[in-house]
Amino acid sequence: MPPFDVSEGDPFGPHNLPYGVFSRVGSAERTVGVRLGDHVLDAGAAALALDSPYASLLARPSLNPLLAAGRTAWSDVRRALTAWMTVRQEEIAGFFHPLSAVTLHLPFEVADYVDFYASENHARNVGQIFRPDAADSLTPNWKHLPIGYHGRSGTVVVSGTDVVRPSGQRKAPTDPAPVFGPSVRLDIEAEVGFVVGVPSAMGTPVGLGEFREHVFGLCLLNDWSARDVQAWEYVPLGPFLGKSFATSVSAWITPLDALEHARVAPPRRTHALLPYLDDAGPDAEPGGYDLRISVAINGHVVSEPPFSTMYWTAAQQLAHMTVNGASLRTGDLYGSGTVSGPEAGQRGSLLELTWNGRDPLELPDGKRTFLEDGDVVTLSAWAPGPGGVRVGLGEVVGRIVAG
Amino acid sequence: MPPFDVSEGDPFGPHNLPYGVFSRVGSAERTVGVRLGDHVLDAGAAALALDSPYASLLARPSLNPLLAAGRTAWSDVRRALTAWMTVRQEEIAGFFHPLSAVTLHLPFEVADYVDFYASENHARNVGQIFRPDAADSLTPNWKHLPIGYHGRSGTVVVSGTDVVRPSGQRKAPTDPAPVFGPSVRLDIEAEVGFVVGVPSAMGTPVGLGEFREHVFGLCLLNDWSARDVQAWEYVPLGPFLGKSFATSVSAWITPLDALEHARVAPPRRTHALLPYLDDAGPDAEPGGYDLRISVAINGHVVSEPPFSTMYWTAAQQLAHMTVNGASLRTGDLYGSGTVSGPEAGQRGSLLELTWNGRDPLELPDGKRTFLEDGDVVTLSAWAPGPGGVRVGLGEVVGRIVAG
Repeated sequence: MPPFDVSEGDPFGPHNLPYGVFSRVGSAERTVGVRLGDHVLDAGAAALALDSPYASLLARPSLNPLLAAGRTAWSDVRRALTAWMTVRQEEIAGFFHPLSAVTLHLPFEVADYVDFYASENHARNVGQIFRPDAADSLTPNWKHLPIGYHGRSGTVVVSGTDVVRPSGQRKAPTDPAPVFGPSVRLDIEAEVGFVVGVPSAMGTPVGLGEFREHVFGLCLLNDWSARDVQAWEYVPLGPFLGKSFATSVSAWITPLDALEHARVAPPRRTHALLPYLDDAGPDAEPGGYDLRISVAINGHVVSEPPFSTMYWTAAQQLAHMTVNGASLRTGDLYGSGTVSGPEAGQRGSLLELTWNGRDPLELPDGKRTFLEDGDVVTLSAWAPGPGGVRVGLGEVVGRIVAG
Repeated sequence: MPPFDVSEGDPFGPHNLPYGVFSRVGSAERTVGVRLGDHVLDAGAAALALDSPYASLLARPSLNPLLAAGRTAWSDVRRALTAWMTVRQEEIAGFFHPLSAVTLHLPFEVADYVDFYASENHARNVGQIFRPDAADSLTPNWKHLPIGYHGRSGTVVVSGTDVVRPSGQRKAPTDPAPVFGPSVRLDIEAEVGFVVGVPSAMGTPVGLGEFREHVFGLCLLNDWSARDVQAWEYVPLGPFLGKSFATSVSAWITPLDALEHARVAPPRRTHALLPYLDDAGPDAEPGGYDLRISVAINGHVVSEPPFSTMYWTAAQQLAHMTVNGASLRTGDLYGSGTVSGPEAGQRGSLLELTWNGRDPLELPDGKRTFLEDGDVVTLSAWAPGPGGVRVGLGEVVGRIVAG
């Protein structure tokens, strides 16, 4: 019986159950939804009908109450949903809607947004492109701490939102003065975003081992980047307008509990780490996630970045972000940084894929160095799940429109 | 009759009327307050008693509804308050509380926090300290755009909040590896913060001339900085943990309408500006503000930075921040950057005042290079008001406590 007749290999089967926020077409009312195959369960309505104690977390217009509820509640709600999907199907069958009949919204209220730079391959590629004469393609701090910076949380948008080509200043080193106009080097960055649920107090760092007490789940994230704007502005205080015009996230947040089979050890560390970042002890839990990302432009796959190659883990990023006493809030979002593997076909940005425009990509509809108006970029991903079944992540789609 | 018997020269007289949020000692209930002398008017209670149409903006636990209401409402509410304070004193006399009997709170919910770098004197000092061999103490972009970056909005705290000394990594260029521990170079940055009221749409820049339609008012801001942490982490993506542990703002937001007599022309621009930043036209309004800031450590004044010397104005910063289509939200806060004048006694950071520790300050309680535990830093300021009366800004106080 639909929607329960998902195939056994469906990456959005009952082993997955990601969360989002939706409204029915023609209605403004938003509520928490849980995806099963090509349908979404109105989780709030189901919880109310079943007299579930979790209705107060699910019959809400955003995921924030669920995020704030904490790890025990996260597990309890997931267990309840699994039971509904399997042994209480008849009671909840009336609360499903086809994905085609709903609008998906930004699933949580973003508090602070931080973006990291955790792929060694990406950092080395960028170093080689921009600092070809440097003795080391990595900056001296790179292997000692997960470099990050704050981005603009007010321009985080949900998958499907058009991205207006930003205008700004740009100046090539040989130009006499900067010029103003639409970015001519508009790029993507394929990333994974981590969503904080449980806050922390100012002055109290969150240790490596507390990652799963605070982080609810993850999403795909496209950190759109205007390379020409960024290059001119970023010394000495970092990226600003080259990034702040838009950051797209998937409509579905995958709970960490759905990714137990995807946990892997991160790459071997080449430098000794300070204790607050050291995850190499014998009791350490594997901090990496084996997520296989795919980047497509106008439906044509141009790259398949492997998240398992990331040097810094999300747990290390959380520990670093708070080691100075900075507090966490429900809805904090942090991006992994561009995911790039060691192979040419695994790079997560056009900057790297075209080597700063030197080697254009050949697409069915023509060559690309950077994005053209009308281009549609799609990030998708899957992870190993129980019994070899894939766990699908929600995709991130964005179309470039002229400013 | 108290509280209306403020002296004619009181910088918090009826010509000022800054807004804050307070609770009475012993109560958890927060509401909007307006300062008069050493008293605060419970503006919500007064509005309700007077059957004012503005009760819905004032009988609220945060300034956000007032901020969002827009410029016409801002002027109308201010006009009403002025009338209450002058010709309706008897009706509102019962709604005042001495400042000593209330707790002041963070007056608005901070959306995005951006920090600029707009003082030429400060930028040149920093350049000379950190890049003594550079041909120009300014980076090539400095005179073409107001450099800025996003900070952590979740750690913006109200004046009076203790600041826990942050720990972090630091590494001198000659050290073989980074070490971890409490910052040994904890600094201040004396700044002015601008508070956005009216949002803007994504994809639509806010022009220079629209500044006063969007920005409600300003506050003093101390951008606490751990210089050792910052120095090691900031290349290539900018300041992160060196700043994100705390940013203090004054409890009082001074509306721009109170600062009409303080408007001044900014310094003459030495470089031609792109049109979206060009405020030199014959019809241009003066974009600067003549704010006289004072920095005290443990009650001893160490610097008097003049805000009128800032090269980039708040209107230019707003235009730049949105020129790429980034949207504004109610509660966005942006800092001017450290305010430093041309004289040694006008520098807004200890980094500059002590020339990176080379020239310690002589305080009554001993020498200082950077802040010690127990030090109390106070920023205060005033601006010229009507008839030569000063307009006082709310002070920003913070005490350093050990981590």
